[in-house]
Amino acid sequence: MVKTDIEIAQEARLKPIKEIAEGLNLAEADWEPYGHTKAKLSDKLLEKLADNPNGKVILVTAISPTPAGEGKSTVTVGLGQALNKIGKKAVIALREPSLGPVMGIKGGAAGGGYSQVLPMEDINLHFTGDLHAITSANNALAAMIDNHIHQGNELGIDPRRIEFKRVMDMNDRALRQIVIGLGGPLRGVPREDGFNITVASEIMAILCLATDLQDLKKRISNIMIGYTYQEEPVYVRDLKVEGALTLLLKDAIKPNLVQTIENTPAIIHGGPFANIAHGCNSIIATKTAVKLGEYVVTEAGFGADLGAEKFLDIKTRAGNIDTDAVVIVATVRALKMHGGVPKNNLTEENLEALRAGMENLQKHIETIQYFGLPFVVAINKFPTDTVNEVNAIEAWCEQRGYTVAMTDVWAKGGEGGIELAQKVVQTIEKGEKSFKRVYELEDSLEIKMTKIARTVYGADGVEFSSKAKKQLAFFEKQGWGELPVCMAKTQYSLSDNPALLGRPKGFTITIRELRPSIGAGFIVALTGDIMTMPGLPKSPAALKMDVTEDGKIVGLF
Amino acid sequence: MVKTDIEIAQEARLKPIKEIAEGLNLAEADWEPYGHTKAKLSDKLLEKLADNPNGKVILVTAISPTPAGEGKSTVTVGLGQALNKIGKKAVIALREPSLGPVMGIKGGAAGGGYSQVLPMEDINLHFTGDLHAITSANNALAAMIDNHIHQGNELGIDPRRIEFKRVMDMNDRALRQIVIGLGGPLRGVPREDGFNITVASEIMAILCLATDLQDLKKRISNIMIGYTYQEEPVYVRDLKVEGALTLLLKDAIKPNLVQTIENTPAIIHGGPFANIAHGCNSIIATKTAVKLGEYVVTEAGFGADLGAEKFLDIKTRAGNIDTDAVVIVATVRALKMHGGVPKNNLTEENLEALRAGMENLQKHIETIQYFGLPFVVAINKFPTDTVNEVNAIEAWCEQRGYTVAMTDVWAKGGEGGIELAQKVVQTIEKGEKSFKRVYELEDSLEIKMTKIARTVYGADGVEFSSKAKKQLAFFEKQGWGELPVCMAKTQYSLSDNPALLGRPKGFTITIRELRPSIGAGFIVALTGDIMTMPGLPKSPAALKMDVTEDGKIVGLF
Repeated sequence: MVKTDIEIAQEARLKPIKEIAEGLNLAEADWEPYGHTKAKLSDKLLEKLADNPNGKVILVTAISPTPAGEGKSTVTVGLGQALNKIGKKAVIALREPSLGPVMGIKGGAAGGGYSQVLPMEDINLHFTGDLHAITSANNALAAMIDNHIHQGNELGIDPRRIEFKRVMDMNDRALRQIVIGLGGPLRGVPREDGFNITVASEIMAILCLATDLQDLKKRISNIMIGYTYQEEPVYVRDLKVEGALTLLLKDAIKPNLVQTIENTPAIIHGGPFANIAHGCNSIIATKTAVKLGEYVVTEAGFGADLGAEKFLDIKTRAGNIDTDAVVIVATVRALKMHGGVPKNNLTEENLEALRAGMENLQKHIETIQYFGLPFVVAINKFPTDTVNEVNAIEAWCEQRGYTVAMTDVWAKGGEGGIELAQKVVQTIEKGEKSFKRVYELEDSLEIKMTKIARTVYGADGVEFSSKAKKQLAFFEKQGWGELPVCMAKTQYSLSDNPALLGRPKGFTITIRELRPSIGAGFIVALTGDIMTMPGLPKSPAALKMDVTEDGKIVGLF
Repeated sequence: MVKTDIEIAQEARLKPIKEIAEGLNLAEADWEPYGHTKAKLSDKLLEKLADNPNGKVILVTAISPTPAGEGKSTVTVGLGQALNKIGKKAVIALREPSLGPVMGIKGGAAGGGYSQVLPMEDINLHFTGDLHAITSANNALAAMIDNHIHQGNELGIDPRRIEFKRVMDMNDRALRQIVIGLGGPLRGVPREDGFNITVASEIMAILCLATDLQDLKKRISNIMIGYTYQEEPVYVRDLKVEGALTLLLKDAIKPNLVQTIENTPAIIHGGPFANIAHGCNSIIATKTAVKLGEYVVTEAGFGADLGAEKFLDIKTRAGNIDTDAVVIVATVRALKMHGGVPKNNLTEENLEALRAGMENLQKHIETIQYFGLPFVVAINKFPTDTVNEVNAIEAWCEQRGYTVAMTDVWAKGGEGGIELAQKVVQTIEKGEKSFKRVYELEDSLEIKMTKIARTVYGADGVEFSSKAKKQLAFFEKQGWGELPVCMAKTQYSLSDNPALLGRPKGFTITIRELRPSIGAGFIVALTGDIMTMPGLPKSPAALKMDVTEDGKIVGLF
């Protein structure tokens, strides 16, 4: 019988976090313990390490994902472990899981099998409290906004035009659209509102883009919370609460150090949505990893069209981070799905569908080539893959001169990623990179979106709704035009229509609406409906979770 | 210039928590570090210490409080420090502060001056995450309830009769009364709802009354969340989520170890409301302190009519805890207010009002005498107290044979509580106690409430609204009649009318409504409006909070 992730995790031998820290040459003052196997790194550490040489940054991205997931986090962890196995000093930099999906569908999100970060039962639940601190800061701000209106509304905030929402780290569809402040003058001012999931909070994006605590405070002070009756933007700095919100985040800004199942150090910190935000772990975490490891393996959300584009156009620009190589993860199952096979037939061999599905991979490769970065294709093995299918992918890559590696890191840990690790190291050592970004900050918002749509999605162009057109003009007038653009698009298709799998052509991207994330420092472009508060399924993962009488945890996977 | 609490705290020399733990003879496996000055005690510790002798338990309670507060937590901390100074091994057991009031009015709630628990900036903010874990468990349950209804409502839960509310650890009046589930079928089933503050969650009360993790799970499974269309109660066990909720609380159930400004060990754990819940720190924390110290100093919320009554009738009954002495805290200012002086004249000497106000103290003393416990009156000094006033109190106590001690622990730390410590130790050593409770579990709910109202409040009797009468019959039929009663009454008066200060007479208590807290294991009796979600003042304390450029925290006090 195949073991579950939590069973594998419970059999692992964790080293005391002190040993992991010492292995990174950290002094006692550089970190604080949170239990015996978790630590927070000092917020002074990055400054202290400034003169260390920079490690090589490997970004793990993927083809357009399917609902089943391609195992990108698992490959990220496995690759880090494999690099250690071939004698390289690797540090993994990952996002923190959100409790909502853990209780809902996922059951856990810390890699899988023999490529997990541990202690998975803590990382998947409250971990070191970062998401809770973000929830608190977000909701403190929301309470201050409604209190300001209730107490006389000196700033003249229009309750119909408040953009800033409350959050909860939970999948709770009933909170998507609500009316608050009911019940008379003792209960505030009635208005429409709604909750997002915490990872969709602008404060999460800010935490991940801030370079230090003072930069965090500055970004928080720039959050645009809504408009006055005169339709002028109102910022957090107008409410004068940026100090309190920063105080609430004083520990959350410190990156968390843990280890993988093979004791490879992993820094896990932050985890914004990859649609209405940029979908990467924090700049502070990645930069710390760069100073501590020879190789840093990090990931970005969804496929290369969303996560990698934002990693390269938003995160590495804000953080001044160099990228040295990209790993593009694909699975035989997902490629067949992109080739037209329905979800319930994916275990049958189908070479024709597989070859058709390679078109999706091809487009993501072209995107990485546009960025001028060397890459390796990683095929994440599943037990149902056939030899013919694997051979077909290898042949396809060889014909085109692409480096490809099979990985089996779920079942074999680092051992299953050695081929990938060797090929990534060779690729980096060749040093063939000529990095450029898709757009410049000086481009207008319209041009930025058009460049992303054409270059990254393969669209013919961009259409703007009449609302978006009005917003474009207003935003440029506000001086927000020089911010990067964060595209909120479905992850399932290169287009804005989730049903168009493979490599769609001859389509345009429709920008329905823009949202100013001025604190985070980007303009969100919404294409279609983007859900910022998930719901629970009929049988939530939570129903299987338990702590048995002898204290054993079950049901996390 | 008088220093603020945070300034005093920042000058303190904290010992590493390892030293505090070692001072309590704890082994490495008995605790986990959370940073260098906080720890969580193992959930196996209490079992391991079973054969240790029991320390003496000192309950700190107070007269009916005024809005300014009487400094009960400060006296609790100061007394613990003073006991150490006179050579006794003391452990303090306190409640955890709630973030909402910290951001709102209080600015901090970890004692004050030279009688604080530290690190106050952590304890006042996220601490070790217990309140966040409770918020998560509470809101996971709420999401499961609405999801159950949305997904077909197999149990037939009536959306109009859901009693279980969402919570947030924030003062947010706009969430008191809301409508959720708006916006069509994708957004759940519309219904009325509201948020309580986290400390008002039944799960907080459960955490504080549970004797171990399995007892916690059992109590959670017994939470009554609402009624079916047939008006039958629905429990958490019917939804089968008690395992997941317990898992979310696996660390929160472990008590937190910190130290005072004078390095006296303090266990801080749990903090339920003292009106709709029982207002004491956790049973696990208090029992652990009893096994670790010769003397345990602990407190209960509000005045003796609320906190002490519930400590003695609910907490010590559920936890099988002996109480050895009671300290009743009063201040000259508050006594004058009970004697009729308006709030803005309290700094003027007024012996007549002082003597009139002693009637309030007298009633609380009689209550403690009814319980058969020895007591000491502690007068918590303020700079504005006059010698005449202090002499008048001492004379009043001497005439009646009451032991009284002046304390000056805010300004002088343990040194300022030595007289109190000596008198408490003498009182305990005399051993004159004949403990009895106000009611027996076999009494009907009606008799329990009547006994509390007559014996503890000095009321003529109890009146029940027609709703409460119907509920009484229904509750007894459900088999809930043998639970203790938790009175939700204003803290400002012995009566249910907050305007009646001093020692009101000739009044009756009106029970407006009952609320079943079946998981916690008590029936709440509501007298008048009890606010379970506070609001923010016009100028919230948060406006003064900040982290300066050199990383210094300001604005917590």
